Amino acid sequence: MRISLDAYGGDFAPDVNIRGALDYLEESKKAEVILTGSEEKLKALLGKGHPRISIVHAPDLIDMAEKASSQLRHRKESSLYKCIDLTAQGATDACVSAGSSAAMMALSLLLLKRIKDVERPALVTPIPTLKKEPCYGLDMGANVDCKPIHLLHFALMGHAYAQVIKNIDRPRIGLISNGEEETKGNELTRETHQLLKAIPEINYAGYCEGRDIFTGDFDVVICDGFVGNVILKTSEGLAETLMHLLKANFSSSLLGKLGYLLARNSLRPLKQKLDYAEYGGAPLLGIGGVSIISHGRSSALAIKNALHAAEKNVKEGLVKRLNQAMNFQSPTLAPKEALNEKVGQ
Amino acid sequence: MRISLDAYGGDFAPDVNIRGALDYLEESKKAEVILTGSEEKLKALLGKGHPRISIVHAPDLIDMAEKASSQLRHRKESSLYKCIDLTAQGATDACVSAGSSAAMMALSLLLLKRIKDVERPALVTPIPTLKKEPCYGLDMGANVDCKPIHLLHFALMGHAYAQVIKNIDRPRIGLISNGEEETKGNELTRETHQLLKAIPEINYAGYCEGRDIFTGDFDVVICDGFVGNVILKTSEGLAETLMHLLKANFSSSLLGKLGYLLARNSLRPLKQKLDYAEYGGAPLLGIGGVSIISHGRSSALAIKNALHAAEKNVKEGLVKRLNQAMNFQSPTLAPKEALNEKVGQ
Repeated sequence: MRISLDAYGGDFAPDVNIRGALDYLEESKKAEVILTGSEEKLKALLGKGHPRISIVHAPDLIDMAEKASSQLRHRKESSLYKCIDLTAQGATDACVSAGSSAAMMALSLLLLKRIKDVERPALVTPIPTLKKEPCYGLDMGANVDCKPIHLLHFALMGHAYAQVIKNIDRPRIGLISNGEEETKGNELTRETHQLLKAIPEINYAGYCEGRDIFTGDFDVVICDGFVGNVILKTSEGLAETLMHLLKANFSSSLLGKLGYLLARNSLRPLKQKLDYAEYGGAPLLGIGGVSIISHGRSSALAIKNALHAAEKNVKEGLVKRLNQAMNFQSPTLAPKEALNEKVGQ
Repeated sequence: MRISLDAYGGDFAPDVNIRGALDYLEESKKAEVILTGSEEKLKALLGKGHPRISIVHAPDLIDMAEKASSQLRHRKESSLYKCIDLTAQGATDACVSAGSSAAMMALSLLLLKRIKDVERPALVTPIPTLKKEPCYGLDMGANVDCKPIHLLHFALMGHAYAQVIKNIDRPRIGLISNGEEETKGNELTRETHQLLKAIPEINYAGYCEGRDIFTGDFDVVICDGFVGNVILKTSEGLAETLMHLLKANFSSSLLGKLGYLLARNSLRPLKQKLDYAEYGGAPLLGIGGVSIISHGRSSALAIKNALHAAEKNVKEGLVKRLNQAMNFQSPTLAPKEALNEKVGQ
């Protein structure tokens, strides 16, 4: 198991990236990590080094604010480009970056190519629920302006991903909307709703309201990447705010303070459930390799878990399974025809 | 102060509506409430009645799932139609309904008309923040497919509303997006961002990520009604889920249980801050009257507070102030020209 890690991706790079890699290697005794970035600086930071860490020199950095335009194609000396290219060349089994997700997606597409028939790869992330298992949301930020066919692909890929990760036959899939009734939704969801209803291979359960994401009634929820990002960031922000308010309220009285001290250990599992770092990165589904995008604010723990996630996805043959999902059989139509007919191409 | 209340709007109507009206009248000693709905049933439920409650008979009910189509125009015997029409006829100062928000909006538009230049009225709701004052979001569900000009109007109306409610001169306005950088956003937000930057009358602070809604750094956040509804419902669902998990975690150990008992009183202000019922309904901004849309799952408390909100908006001359906001002066262009030029009409 060899994983390439963009040492300069993320708000706290390269320190937390190196820490995360070392922690991962501590737990995964046969794995190797290849860091991409400034060789000189990384060598200095690594000190005497690690037998299963190597460095591939990449002097150029891609800024978070840079547009994922075609210019990126020519930035072959960037730590991100090298990171993905190592996987594309077969030198690593998977790649991980906490850098610009737009750039990560653009370069993953360019270098690892798409799975047949997938127009837009999607980011999938776990969302904590009242039940034991999380709900998987996609697309959580890769594609801001989507068409119904893209959301259909997300549903098929989410179906395959949940089958792998949750080990269930027919994951329950919901389409994020502003109400449960068929008359709700916007132009995009209404058209997508009709498409999804017509695919017997997936267990499409209709519209899912924002409040129902957390009940655990849905295994997978589908939306465009703009809405997905808003859901993700809103949830993160609200959870942090609530924990903050909770602590402030506890501290406002002596009894409250005492109660908090007594209850503090009981809060730990909740905090863990909400911490994105616990889940590691978000795989980009629909490309011909395992490419994990980590949160820009990744901690060492998040990087470590992203490396574990990459390893798991490789071992479970994720790419092969996604390929199979896109080859879905409709009772009356061949897959390609089914897709094309339904979007009127 | 006379307010019409749709007695048959909402999931728990008419019982909680009657309870809410009675509680409101208990607190607002000079107000009157006119209930619209089945006279026979309402009379039976009211028993010996209340000196400041009257009933206007409306035998027809509008189902939550019904499309807010032109057919609604002809449903003049519905409790919702009568409720709004009373305000349109000048018989009441404001109207409140917890029924279908789409129908409420369509009929409010039809009967109360729009404020000059406002193409799409918007729902505004408070969102709790880390600071004392909430942030006001619009549109929170009235318009699912918006154009940049609509979001510009939302910003102008949000500006005026926050001035009234928060008593500040230059409310800080953010545009919901999937990142802070200018290169982020979708087609809609990118175009809107350019429009908003060009209006000197408002204090536009740029893109606002989902996580920043709760910091209190923004007084007003703008988005289309689909995204707004998703933000609102996601927040509600997550807050409920967290409170549930919190309690479950507390109960999982003896110390936790004891801590919870000691801290319970400290939790009350937090619960209050998160409960939409505390804030009452959401005013529909941009129409020529005070029209309050309550949550479909409104409790008696929510109905009571919606009636209080209606009263406050009438007393503060909300409609007049919104009219003034739409007459904004640009240094170089007349308002109508400014708007039209910027959207290329």
